Amino acid sequence: MSQLSTKHLLGIKDITADDINLIFETADNFKEVINRPIKKVPSLRDITIANIFFENSTRTKLSFELAEKRLSADVVNFSSSNSSVKKGETLVDTVNNILSMKVDMVVMRHSSPGAPHFLSRNIKANIVNAGDGTHEHPTQALLDAFSIREKLGDVAGKKVAIIGDILHSRVALSNIFCLQKLGAEVMVCGPTTLLPKYIGSLGVKVEHDVNKALQWCDVANILRIQLERQQIKYFPSLREYALYFGVNKKMLDNLDKEIVIMHPGPINRGVELNSDVADSEHSIILNQVENGVAVRMAVLYLLAGVR
Amino acid sequence: MSQLSTKHLLGIKDITADDINLIFETADNFKEVINRPIKKVPSLRDITIANIFFENSTRTKLSFELAEKRLSADVVNFSSSNSSVKKGETLVDTVNNILSMKVDMVVMRHSSPGAPHFLSRNIKANIVNAGDGTHEHPTQALLDAFSIREKLGDVAGKKVAIIGDILHSRVALSNIFCLQKLGAEVMVCGPTTLLPKYIGSLGVKVEHDVNKALQWCDVANILRIQLERQQIKYFPSLREYALYFGVNKKMLDNLDKEIVIMHPGPINRGVELNSDVADSEHSIILNQVENGVAVRMAVLYLLAGVR
Amino acid sequence: MSQLSTKHLLGIKDITADDINLIFETADNFKEVINRPIKKVPSLRDITIANIFFENSTRTKLSFELAEKRLSADVVNFSSSNSSVKKGETLVDTVNNILSMKVDMVVMRHSSPGAPHFLSRNIKANIVNAGDGTHEHPTQALLDAFSIREKLGDVAGKKVAIIGDILHSRVALSNIFCLQKLGAEVMVCGPTTLLPKYIGSLGVKVEHDVNKALQWCDVANILRIQLERQQIKYFPSLREYALYFGVNKKMLDNLDKEIVIMHPGPINRGVELNSDVADSEHSIILNQVENGVAVRMAVLYLLAGVR
Repeated sequence: MSQLSTKHLLGIKDITADDINLIFETADNFKEVINRPIKKVPSLRDITIANIFFENSTRTKLSFELAEKRLSADVVNFSSSNSSVKKGETLVDTVNNILSMKVDMVVMRHSSPGAPHFLSRNIKANIVNAGDGTHEHPTQALLDAFSIREKLGDVAGKKVAIIGDILHSRVALSNIFCLQKLGAEVMVCGPTTLLPKYIGSLGVKVEHDVNKALQWCDVANILRIQLERQQIKYFPSLREYALYFGVNKKMLDNLDKEIVIMHPGPINRGVELNSDVADSEHSIILNQVENGVAVRMAVLYLLAGVR
Repeated sequence: MSQLSTKHLLGIKDITADDINLIFETADNFKEVINRPIKKVPSLRDITIANIFFENSTRTKLSFELAEKRLSADVVNFSSSNSSVKKGETLVDTVNNILSMKVDMVVMRHSSPGAPHFLSRNIKANIVNAGDGTHEHPTQALLDAFSIREKLGDVAGKKVAIIGDILHSRVALSNIFCLQKLGAEVMVCGPTTLLPKYIGSLGVKVEHDVNKALQWCDVANILRIQLERQQIKYFPSLREYALYFGVNKKMLDNLDKEIVIMHPGPINRGVELNSDVADSEHSIILNQVENGVAVRMAVLYLLAGVR
Repeated sequence: MSQLSTKHLLGIKDITADDINLIFETADNFKEVINRPIKKVPSLRDITIANIFFENSTRTKLSFELAEKRLSADVVNFSSSNSSVKKGETLVDTVNNILSMKVDMVVMRHSSPGAPHFLSRNIKANIVNAGDGTHEHPTQALLDAFSIREKLGDVAGKKVAIIGDILHSRVALSNIFCLQKLGAEVMVCGPTTLLPKYIGSLGVKVEHDVNKALQWCDVANILRIQLERQQIKYFPSLREYALYFGVNKKMLDNLDKEIVIMHPGPINRGVELNSDVADSEHSIILNQVENGVAVRMAVLYLLAGVR
């Protein structure tokens, strides 16, 4: 098979393990491309892609933009701060307007869970979800799993602990779906106040002791404390969180094995992760960033083939 | 004739019917281009265009940017929020600086009526007015008339009612000039408080009953209630406005004919226009958006020929 | 020699007169290029450059962006207003993330003196300092000296007075270093409150009477009153400053010679410089802007050769 089963990438929940593997194999090729002196391919030369970000983003937007430019697509950027959204326009109107200008693909970040799914039923272009609130962020999950596969050879059979603020994360849910579809065992670890109530229904192990989680896992994906996404005051406090859940080198040294450390960034150094771990040889954090461009190139390239 | 009579597009007032028709014929060609799989032409390959927006804009800026990229121009964007304007620089200094960097054309939006006209007397590049306050917005009027021509075959002899907030609109005046030059009859319709005092001098019919306006016209161009442009409290209120001037399907069903519905966007659904009209087969609103790219390509292409 | 002695352009302090002359000779060629109808060269076709601006900028950012596009580089823009910096990320993390996405060169403006120097010790890409607080702004000094050389044939032996707010300027220090390395004599002139305390150690003449400075010099570089950079209330006031230090035509007419007037922009007309001077034939202010693109092309081109 050389085609995705879907026209959009809305969430990992909606795609198959075959889809994921096809994306990975395609990303393998693109990773070679972006490490060549000549980093560009003409694949999407006749395609116009709109990056529509209703929420701020740095690395995700930059990563998509670079992926699009490496594929030779024409890129237009649209962010809510200078948008019609403020003038009271509906989401469908905004996007339909952009599409009437003959845009072929839409990469969208929106604060409302389900916003890209809603759009996909109303517009004709391919849609890539770049994060819908705390729901799904599929390309992040793909690049995370791709990075594990790159480091450990395979994802199947691996034990992955997702540690930290599961509740406010836009990364956790997509990661759980992706890892499970690829045959990994998943554990979540964090204080009860930062775990969603429905966590028990997802088929993951739940742990509240970070040392036990580290002892169990092959890979620890340390999530960022999403200060800016929280409406209410944090419990535990940052200091308490760092004390009870922050990961440092001493904790890794106490393990009887080597584990892989991941983080979706941006890192709060000294809170969820200490510099002696983030910058250590255990960390594949910058590989994740590098792989993000290759994985997004693969997603855009494959979706364009289903147009 | 295959050349515009002007080096700039400052307003519809300054150009001839021949100019308008030349733009339309050129836009016909570009509309074909942007509906092909390969949407790009190399026409402005050696031209650098600066989009200078001293006021926020979404669709106009995006539409120009896409038009420029389809023509293979190099594009630089400049918006006032991160500009020297805040540092107290004069308009001429700002633009002269940009031009010293060898920019060939300037697309400019400014809050002051006459700003682009002032500039055109002081700088050497081609200037396209993308809206100067509530004065002119020539490319919007061109794309509106182009869309009427496309839908009804011709603009001459057609009856066009411009309905709503004429006073605060950046679209109304250019539309009146453009439609009259092409031989259409024009009516404006709205509450007295939202009509400019000089309206009587423009040679248009004035109507205060929206149902009578709809009965009279072949085309209704429903303007947006420009909430964000009003310094004083609205009279009538939004609720009153929607009640007395909002257009809905029932009103169209009561007519003994079909009329064409237009809106420059963004739509305040349920205020000046109901969804049962905006999304109906009467509406050519998304065609307007599509035509906007083709018309702007034509304007930029033709002006570049007069350089 | 046809290569710079450095991999980065952090400040004029760190480069040699040979480096500066090589940049000028290269800029001579690029100045020809950007005055041709076809203004683009394919030199940096396989290079991706990130413009990372942690402080607002108009002309510098635009000038770099145009220089990069004329060199056919791929350009990504990143400004702090929509960045992870607000999410508490460290500078090195932000930049390392961008570099992991395979960016080859970084053009950076930052409010902290030394920020690009710090980065250059931690990352692998070429770094161009586009202003680090009130410390260095090397490309501005290069384009200033290049413009003097263009106007007067040579920089060596010329007398250059830098007049105004030396203390808060991001331009003064780099200019002093650059002019001295090229063999010019440098004087600074301004009220004591706007001169840094260490000024005596830089080997420049110090003058408090602007008329004497004008009488002494061949070139007067009038700095902008940096209202937005001052934490404390100005002393002297703007009115006092304009009265005692503002340069007008009458003052130039009183000289027994012609001098060249420069200004890094944006100009506060009527404060540090009157329009009758800024727009006179003495002024090479717009030449500075034009040369900025050529000089920046030269810097980027040469640094890319040292990769």
